[in-house]
Amino acid sequence: MVREDELRAGEVAVEPPAATDAGLVFIGTIHTPWTSRLETPRQGRADGPVCRIEVHEPWVAALDGLEQFETIEVLYWLHLSRRDLVRQSPRNDRDVRGTFALRSPVRPNPIATSVATMVRVDGPNVFVHGLDCLDGTPLLDLKPDRCLFTPLAPPQPGDSEVG
Amino acid sequence: MVREDELRAGEVAVEPPAATDAGLVFIGTIHTPWTSRLETPRQGRADGPVCRIEVHEPWVAALDGLEQFETIEVLYWLHLSRRDLVRQSPRNDRDVRGTFALRSPVRPNPIATSVATMVRVDGPNVFVHGLDCLDGTPLLDLKPDRCLFTPLAPPQPGDSEVG
Repeated sequence: MVREDELRAGEVAVEPPAATDAGLVFIGTIHTPWTSRLETPRQGRADGPVCRIEVHEPWVAALDGLEQFETIEVLYWLHLSRRDLVRQSPRNDRDVRGTFALRSPVRPNPIATSVATMVRVDGPNVFVHGLDCLDGTPLLDLKPDRCLFTPLAPPQPGDSEVG
Repeated sequence: MVREDELRAGEVAVEPPAATDAGLVFIGTIHTPWTSRLETPRQGRADGPVCRIEVHEPWVAALDGLEQFETIEVLYWLHLSRRDLVRQSPRNDRDVRGTFALRSPVRPNPIATSVATMVRVDGPNVFVHGLDCLDGTPLLDLKPDRCLFTPLAPPQPGDSEVG
């Protein structure tokens, strides 16, 4: 059974500090076929259902040029996730691992990153394959896939530093 | 010249909504050789300098198991970036693109994602190659690279959906 906020055998929760170091703005909404945490895929697949990422104003102009990228990085906020576990048991079998050694939605800052396959951009809507989140998930950011992107800005000294 | 909060010819700024939809907690600090935005690499390189990611309590226990991954995803907060541009000119040459078609640090939610190469984990410190951020950058999250990670949790109905 997928996690629904239960604490499992062997898991460790902490008393987290207040999450007030920086603030996020939700810039859109992700529309998917999944309305329950019991149904969502564990990871998106490039041949999965087409999902619609709806960008809200005043950010729609920022989509200009995105469609040219075959794959994009999508950042979203896992709004239903608890944030206080440092050790988790994904299989609920007493075997636990550190939160940072998992891609579980339960993390101190529940930010998900997915690589999605571009279908098209139509006005404020970006249609993609490859998402794995609940319908209604808040959007945080869209970026070209790092593997497809060459910086346009002029070189900087750090570019050539090796070590 | 790298951006230092100037508005360039052709760029478009908006009046952004308050960034109060969700709150972040800084879970650590990233130590790099770069102390000025005029020096940082535009993108990290796998043979770049070793950088130290220092994780703060109460999150150190969450590192358990991370060292086994050859590459990890690092999320951090670009604390000096302006957040109000929807069109940007990376070369400062009047050629502008939408913010979401760039990997510029200037974005509505200035969250960076890098794929870093693991050197070792030592107590609260994770040593990696491949970062490109300023010394003192706040850490948001660490995850195994998606390409190396197989979900441990049991299958869900959405796993097999194609479309």
